[in-house]
Amino acid sequence: MLTAPKLRTPFLIVNPKAYLGGADTLRLALLTDELAGQFDIDVIFTSQDAYLVEIARRTTHLTVTAQHMDPITPGRGMGHTLPEALAEAGASAVVLNHAEHPMTLAELDATMRRADELGLMTIVCADSERQCRAVAQLEPKVMICEPTANIGTGSMDTGDYIARTTRAVKQIDPSILVIQAAGVTSGADITRVLEQGADGSGGTSGIIAAPDWRVVLEDMFTALKGFQATRGNR
Amino acid sequence: MLTAPKLRTPFLIVNPKAYLGGADTLRLALLTDELAGQFDIDVIFTSQDAYLVEIARRTTHLTVTAQHMDPITPGRGMGHTLPEALAEAGASAVVLNHAEHPMTLAELDATMRRADELGLMTIVCADSERQCRAVAQLEPKVMICEPTANIGTGSMDTGDYIARTTRAVKQIDPSILVIQAAGVTSGADITRVLEQGADGSGGTSGIIAAPDWRVVLEDMFTALKGFQATRGNR
Amino acid sequence: MLTAPKLRTPFLIVNPKAYLGGADTLRLALLTDELAGQFDIDVIFTSQDAYLVEIARRTTHLTVTAQHMDPITPGRGMGHTLPEALAEAGASAVVLNHAEHPMTLAELDATMRRADELGLMTIVCADSERQCRAVAQLEPKVMICEPTANIGTGSMDTGDYIARTTRAVKQIDPSILVIQAAGVTSGADITRVLEQGADGSGGTSGIIAAPDWRVVLEDMFTALKGFQATRGNR
Amino acid sequence: MLTAPKLRTPFLIVNPKAYLGGADTLRLALLTDELAGQFDIDVIFTSQDAYLVEIARRTTHLTVTAQHMDPITPGRGMGHTLPEALAEAGASAVVLNHAEHPMTLAELDATMRRADELGLMTIVCADSERQCRAVAQLEPKVMICEPTANIGTGSMDTGDYIARTTRAVKQIDPSILVIQAAGVTSGADITRVLEQGADGSGGTSGIIAAPDWRVVLEDMFTALKGFQATRGNR
Repeated sequence: MLTAPKLRTPFLIVNPKAYLGGADTLRLALLTDELAGQFDIDVIFTSQDAYLVEIARRTTHLTVTAQHMDPITPGRGMGHTLPEALAEAGASAVVLNHAEHPMTLAELDATMRRADELGLMTIVCADSERQCRAVAQLEPKVMICEPTANIGTGSMDTGDYIARTTRAVKQIDPSILVIQAAGVTSGADITRVLEQGADGSGGTSGIIAAPDWRVVLEDMFTALKGFQATRGNR
Repeated sequence: MLTAPKLRTPFLIVNPKAYLGGADTLRLALLTDELAGQFDIDVIFTSQDAYLVEIARRTTHLTVTAQHMDPITPGRGMGHTLPEALAEAGASAVVLNHAEHPMTLAELDATMRRADELGLMTIVCADSERQCRAVAQLEPKVMICEPTANIGTGSMDTGDYIARTTRAVKQIDPSILVIQAAGVTSGADITRVLEQGADGSGGTSGIIAAPDWRVVLEDMFTALKGFQATRGNR
Repeated sequence: MLTAPKLRTPFLIVNPKAYLGGADTLRLALLTDELAGQFDIDVIFTSQDAYLVEIARRTTHLTVTAQHMDPITPGRGMGHTLPEALAEAGASAVVLNHAEHPMTLAELDATMRRADELGLMTIVCADSERQCRAVAQLEPKVMICEPTANIGTGSMDTGDYIARTTRAVKQIDPSILVIQAAGVTSGADITRVLEQGADGSGGTSGIIAAPDWRVVLEDMFTALKGFQATRGNR
Repeated sequence: MLTAPKLRTPFLIVNPKAYLGGADTLRLALLTDELAGQFDIDVIFTSQDAYLVEIARRTTHLTVTAQHMDPITPGRGMGHTLPEALAEAGASAVVLNHAEHPMTLAELDATMRRADELGLMTIVCADSERQCRAVAQLEPKVMICEPTANIGTGSMDTGDYIARTTRAVKQIDPSILVIQAAGVTSGADITRVLEQGADGSGGTSGIIAAPDWRVVLEDMFTALKGFQATRGNR
């Protein structure tokens, strides 16, 4: 059982999903890495498996993160992602059960245990409050609580989803770090979710679709730094 | 619509599935590449996505091949494999519908069309004769006809499967190249399937589990070269 | 190997999917049965598994049809539909691979063979022309060619989809009966698809959502009868 | 939001999965119903959807239970099981997430909420202790804790699985009833799991494969009645 990396809070997640080609993903990774160093803020950066090696080699401040993996061990498993392959490529974390790649409960549990064996930090997605509580029982290191209906919309939940699901997770296990990022597009959005209890935030389309990545990322890092200064590094 | 690479027949397939870590996969790729150059025989070499970049960079005679991809276009698709990412990583072919990662007919068709757009050579698996005929209608470049029950057993079909399925595919489209590799573990096995009409052969456990990769690969390349000499390069 | 029922052409399909509760489904089945007898036209009538027994008991002119089944044999398979259970409940046909329940190629093949063993008529869906040709190779008795994008829209394909896919299927096996029903809402629509070569037509929302089921069904039966009179019973 | 039926403990589960045809299932249901009345013990009896109507009509002491359903509402969903159809057919409960039909966490949650709306009692399966705790957070009425490796083996877990998982569930919500049935084949087995904290037991192959159903069922009912007498009806 290896030890997964630790994240200092508050932290950023940059999750380009399948939006970018390899050259653009690397460009975004290098820019994020530069700002992460400058602001001294931790960052989860996800990528397609095929780009992991290059990102891991050329960045120093990012928690290089795969977007899925399968609960297989070395052997059969044609077309499935071997956890060892991700670790060897330089990934130190993996996102599981994203709404765009939902897993059965049994597969999710088995895959999380494989991640634990390899010291890959588990970042597990959940939607409703009940699902958030269920995933919290599986002992993830980090959770992404995200109302599926808001993904990719650029609009945040207007009710109590953020505070309520964060609290539900922390009541089960206060050591789980909670990301709230649905609809987040600016530093002001990030401040708002951190004030409601989240440990990290960031996003996909809110960053990728911005006219200038440096501008939006600097805005987000500034918000994280500002929150950190006010509240202290938890 | 880009153009997929062409294979000269007879050719070898080396398919380590999820058996090997990155270092071992690269070692196997380098050895295969060396022998492919020496014997002047074409080779399909598959790998986990995370190793594609390195294999593509460091080999010259291999058709670097992904083990699966999804029918997505750039955008959403967290945890799914973007075809563009494979192409950019240096893959020039992709295996689809392997028994260990079966696809729905609609997904398979859509993914093959994405491969066609990007010039990735489609290598599609099928089991029964009816399934072989069905896949042949989807216009793959290469097919792997494989009785699921024999995968990984080290024992070949003892009936007429090889001749019958190869003929069924060629009757629908003679330009489709057919791989027969289930249970193949030696050069003699390869000669036997080529004599029954196959265009290529090779395997997974028959190579990976051999005590000395160089010995088994040289045996297989020798068989391919010998068959080529007898029959002429088709 | 039992013998599947035969359909006289042209025929109607009434496919309420999951739109109706049991009482409404039975009401629709009884009405369709009455008109089927009156017009002497064959009808495929699908239903949720839970309603099959009652529909089979109380109708005489319908080919009572399940909406899916699994390739299992008696034994394990909790939560999966046993083909024997459908046959025993009175079903004599089954729809497979609908766009709302896509199957892998291997599962589809295996399930069709189970249907053949039990004498259940296979009615298999396909979308693109390539998929239609692929399914035709699996030796179904009936096919539903349906451009997924048009399902449930009430608007028919305006290009050559109907003629082209029907011809593609018949070229592979002229004995396969072809249903074209996407977007069909009236007798006039049915006449149009029959004139383009289809053997049967009908629908879901085009019937279910009509203000008066009897009116729309009489219109459709009249069209079928009229076409039959003109062309002769093939 | 309708009210799900309540079970008196200890209770029996008879789960023929896909082992039996309709006539045999009905015969088993009638026998179980007779003994359930005679012993005054509650019983969960599952069946293929196609047999539900008949079992519900002809028995009075059984909680008639479907083996799966989908999270759909009336409308599209060809080939999927509409919850309303099960309720209308006479089911009052549904098993979800069985190891032979695993569900994604999001689907499971959504399907449980549909069951709650219709007053169908949710009986949800889980494997590892972590999975048991996760499912308990989704607010099921009943859980089946079952180490997947033991299903259908006729041998029970020899460690602390039963006591440990039952306790884990009850700590989260003491009102959840827990079934432990993996490998159970006799009244003595049932007594053993009840003594370790389970509320119900029974099985599939332990009953179906017995030479005389009446003998094994009487043995099981006697054990349940004996346990009830000793401990009192909780």
